[in-house]
Amino acid sequence: MDQVFNAVRTDLALEAREMLTKRVQEEIPGVLVETSEDDDVVITRVNITTPAAEKMMGKMQGKYITIEAPGLRYKNTPLQEKIMKFLADELVAMVNLPRNATVLIVGLGNWNVTPDALGPRAAHKIVVTRHLQEMLSPELKGGVRSVCAIAPGVLGITGMETAEIIQGIVSNIKPSLVIAIDALAAASSQRVITTVQLANTGIHPGSGVGNKRFGLTQSSLGVPVIAIGVPTVVHASTIAMDTINTLQEHAAFGRYFKSMANLSDQDRQTIVRQVLPEMLGDLMVTPKEVDRLIEDIAAVVAGGINQAMHPNIDYENIHMYLH
Amino acid sequence: MDQVFNAVRTDLALEAREMLTKRVQEEIPGVLVETSEDDDVVITRVNITTPAAEKMMGKMQGKYITIEAPGLRYKNTPLQEKIMKFLADELVAMVNLPRNATVLIVGLGNWNVTPDALGPRAAHKIVVTRHLQEMLSPELKGGVRSVCAIAPGVLGITGMETAEIIQGIVSNIKPSLVIAIDALAAASSQRVITTVQLANTGIHPGSGVGNKRFGLTQSSLGVPVIAIGVPTVVHASTIAMDTINTLQEHAAFGRYFKSMANLSDQDRQTIVRQVLPEMLGDLMVTPKEVDRLIEDIAAVVAGGINQAMHPNIDYENIHMYLH
Amino acid sequence: MDQVFNAVRTDLALEAREMLTKRVQEEIPGVLVETSEDDDVVITRVNITTPAAEKMMGKMQGKYITIEAPGLRYKNTPLQEKIMKFLADELVAMVNLPRNATVLIVGLGNWNVTPDALGPRAAHKIVVTRHLQEMLSPELKGGVRSVCAIAPGVLGITGMETAEIIQGIVSNIKPSLVIAIDALAAASSQRVITTVQLANTGIHPGSGVGNKRFGLTQSSLGVPVIAIGVPTVVHASTIAMDTINTLQEHAAFGRYFKSMANLSDQDRQTIVRQVLPEMLGDLMVTPKEVDRLIEDIAAVVAGGINQAMHPNIDYENIHMYLH
Amino acid sequence: MDQVFNAVRTDLALEAREMLTKRVQEEIPGVLVETSEDDDVVITRVNITTPAAEKMMGKMQGKYITIEAPGLRYKNTPLQEKIMKFLADELVAMVNLPRNATVLIVGLGNWNVTPDALGPRAAHKIVVTRHLQEMLSPELKGGVRSVCAIAPGVLGITGMETAEIIQGIVSNIKPSLVIAIDALAAASSQRVITTVQLANTGIHPGSGVGNKRFGLTQSSLGVPVIAIGVPTVVHASTIAMDTINTLQEHAAFGRYFKSMANLSDQDRQTIVRQVLPEMLGDLMVTPKEVDRLIEDIAAVVAGGINQAMHPNIDYENIHMYLH
Repeated sequence: MDQVFNAVRTDLALEAREMLTKRVQEEIPGVLVETSEDDDVVITRVNITTPAAEKMMGKMQGKYITIEAPGLRYKNTPLQEKIMKFLADELVAMVNLPRNATVLIVGLGNWNVTPDALGPRAAHKIVVTRHLQEMLSPELKGGVRSVCAIAPGVLGITGMETAEIIQGIVSNIKPSLVIAIDALAAASSQRVITTVQLANTGIHPGSGVGNKRFGLTQSSLGVPVIAIGVPTVVHASTIAMDTINTLQEHAAFGRYFKSMANLSDQDRQTIVRQVLPEMLGDLMVTPKEVDRLIEDIAAVVAGGINQAMHPNIDYENIHMYLH
Repeated sequence: MDQVFNAVRTDLALEAREMLTKRVQEEIPGVLVETSEDDDVVITRVNITTPAAEKMMGKMQGKYITIEAPGLRYKNTPLQEKIMKFLADELVAMVNLPRNATVLIVGLGNWNVTPDALGPRAAHKIVVTRHLQEMLSPELKGGVRSVCAIAPGVLGITGMETAEIIQGIVSNIKPSLVIAIDALAAASSQRVITTVQLANTGIHPGSGVGNKRFGLTQSSLGVPVIAIGVPTVVHASTIAMDTINTLQEHAAFGRYFKSMANLSDQDRQTIVRQVLPEMLGDLMVTPKEVDRLIEDIAAVVAGGINQAMHPNIDYENIHMYLH
Repeated sequence: MDQVFNAVRTDLALEAREMLTKRVQEEIPGVLVETSEDDDVVITRVNITTPAAEKMMGKMQGKYITIEAPGLRYKNTPLQEKIMKFLADELVAMVNLPRNATVLIVGLGNWNVTPDALGPRAAHKIVVTRHLQEMLSPELKGGVRSVCAIAPGVLGITGMETAEIIQGIVSNIKPSLVIAIDALAAASSQRVITTVQLANTGIHPGSGVGNKRFGLTQSSLGVPVIAIGVPTVVHASTIAMDTINTLQEHAAFGRYFKSMANLSDQDRQTIVRQVLPEMLGDLMVTPKEVDRLIEDIAAVVAGGINQAMHPNIDYENIHMYLH
Repeated sequence: MDQVFNAVRTDLALEAREMLTKRVQEEIPGVLVETSEDDDVVITRVNITTPAAEKMMGKMQGKYITIEAPGLRYKNTPLQEKIMKFLADELVAMVNLPRNATVLIVGLGNWNVTPDALGPRAAHKIVVTRHLQEMLSPELKGGVRSVCAIAPGVLGITGMETAEIIQGIVSNIKPSLVIAIDALAAASSQRVITTVQLANTGIHPGSGVGNKRFGLTQSSLGVPVIAIGVPTVVHASTIAMDTINTLQEHAAFGRYFKSMANLSDQDRQTIVRQVLPEMLGDLMVTPKEVDRLIEDIAAVVAGGINQAMHPNIDYENIHMYLH
């Protein structure tokens, strides 16, 4: 994959496909796409089905479901509840989980860096029940799966790769499934906080706001790993690259300067490096209200997971039973 | 001042001058500049001396001192202590404060949005002593000024303009001086977290990460207001505008496309709006490690203020005496 | 009032009366009491109507309404909503507030000390609207009062008495009413977190977990002040004194040692001082789960105030309109 | 061990021995004690050497070193640095650690409950280096051990026993030593925050503010475990029991009521239960300033560990090298 294409970095399969089809001007072989939508929400299913498609897309083979709802940027309780339900339904459909399975939820990222805090904040809102299984009455047990959760912190704080920590815990706790929640980078600022991506591929190296060095996948952990992510940032280099691309589109229409159409990939890289000299890639672009937005979307993500995990529960009263 | 120039927004007088001189290709009348430097640090004094210069620069008439130290991005204790000392010295030189004056420190910004949290975090590290004045022994009193501090929160949280809150407190507490600490926006990503600006102009409307609607100035508060700020973000629109400018410079040298040299201000605005459609100006660019960086620089800012306020104190033991 | 009686310190008028009537073995002249209850909740109205009663009770003349619900210790959504409603109703009945009045909510206490953080946490959950009044449509305005809120921090952090800060803000903002939220001390551990007290007396000196040195009252602020408090601690000295009293009750029944009935007030003080030597009064007794409990009860308090302030609003969607 | 003795609960071996010797009026066989002191600090070494002594003391066989410094309650930098040095020296003497060993630091307890937050806060201040070993220059490596750290959260938040999580991580990371930091309960309020206990026994079930259900010991983890703890609370039942004991001492001297000397253990339990009815044991007694005190003592504990782990480093500049 060429470097320039990488300069517009995205963790969304949806966007990777958009950029690639725009670039090659045709559908990508081995990538299946389905879309359904209503007034508030667009759901897109991208299925990467061949190793060749994996290589072209720069995303692991597997299913990626993207729920986009621009209204999530505003505190809109009914829409939030609708997205929770959608997320729960997609999650249930994606895994075939027995009643008595144990599920480990992993909140990736850094509590202390607001745009990277989605994982830890969502993990904190998970209804954990694994330690209560013996105490639950049989009728309650029907609706309460054994769920545990951890937000292990990032490499710079622990000195351990997240993958090392989670491998250790998985080998001891032996869950049937891991669900990893992570803050992502999008290519488009309009998808920031408004999009939830669900993937059966796990987390791959280099992804996320914190750019993981090792992945959390079925092959590294020995159990299936579902990744749930929400873009919270755009890379600064993406903004610069987008500006060039926009100029170039105008050029294509002869608006400003024809010659720009000939700008090579390397030329574009050179310009971006000049705009963002030393810190290329270390700068992230995020909304000013990021704290409130992350708190709200963390509640949506956790709510969706809770519903998928504990389906037959009266949520009004769940905490009463559990204490 | 034209709108396009504003698209590259900066709260640093230093940068406003740089951009303006580049644009008009000559020194700005009524703007005096002095620079001194050593291996680690550059200190620049920008003095805006006329109403005409105020208008051209888009910055209030007054003195702006900028301490730039790229090394502040790394946890470097000796450099941090050096900058604290410089800041204390400049602060003492800027105000002629009697021994028995009371000083109110105001931490502007939002605790919960990391890049906007500089003010509250620094205010929290101030050695407050106003409530202890009666208890202090006379020999200690010589080195301990009466200092109080508040971080009132932002408009969206309080429903009150910060200026309204501070006006009320000032009219009741009657300090001789207000020092307002705020997170700023820079034009250059390299100045983020590495630069401290000290100004005798107070805080003016529209400045800071949170974009104040009302200023904190001698005319609004009735007492002198020193503003101490550190850039913690670059506006996303600045990155886009920078990219265009960089392309244009190449164009000037005939590198890619001559015609771009003719791009009008309005053309550039159009392109930036297209790259950052709905959220223009609401996105901020900030380093990934913003939490640690802000914690460190807040300690430098608070340390400089503490030294300036309480000059003759044994800092090792200050807390012992005070409890 | 004698010192020994004070050793069992309480901020609840309900408890002050209980202790006093137990002590003097009769009803207190000038103190009116009314109780109503259902399965989950007891509401007690204590009205201190004379200066003599004020002196005996050690509580300012005025109305104190106590809502007790032991179930609040468990996360019980329907009960929480019921208490919110009760609190809103009592609040509306206590003040006769015009539609267009501005109300200032003050969260007293220290964010960083969990049992003292009720005020700041509840203030943070208030729907503030004062800054939006001009933007609200007329039909929305009918249900949305002008509300602002601040959590100014405590004396040790600001160097200013809370009363000084609030006086300044009140004189500038000119609200029609101040509602002050504070964490309280109870005499009985069973009332901790399960009780909400509403009083039209404001906050008086010496009350609260942080022991205010100056009050927030109509006479100090010039506008009516409603105090809403929840006990979050019991003083350690209360536990010690309770133990002695319990022994003494047994003694009265001749169970263990008759002579103990003769223990003087001073004897009891001596023993308490010996048990809690240096730190008498600086230790607080609080539940281990204090963080979760305070978060929940802060939501109840803020919810009650929000309903009282903004009666005709669709709470599902309030945030949508307001953004 | 009888129940009454347990009612005064302590995690300090020092106090367990004090109470036991007072009770049995003689030295405990198999318990060796050594004390050294200077103006500010008392160091006591309690060595429990036999299974019989373990049973009597209710503390695991092993060495317990207690550093008591009442001055730690006041922010006294020189004293804090002295205690850090003492702690580092004792830690180095307790373990015989090769240069190239990896050490895992575990911060036990709940971030969100201030008196239980010592472990997480101290862990956060550890200089972690395991991930940097490859990057370190050989001369730096001499002074920088491979250290990693985690604060896994408590059972109610994760659904997993801390021991399960740490076992998993230890089996994957394979450290040579685990150091577990925990908030403790003392019997005496004067030892709260002023005492650091170091033990080569690990953490045993039932200890700490959060009352662990499973221990972290060499037998559960397969590697040596050093426990470092600081009492941050006294149990409320301890205050009640202390009050009775104080009365009883007076009784012994015939001061108030002779018959009290005959109070049986069960009588005393009955009284304590009556004073602290429902919540017996769930209430903790802690200083009002607990937030600041824990922050300071966490820095002392982390500083001592950092010095012991990375002995030959210029601490002024450590962070410079490491970034």
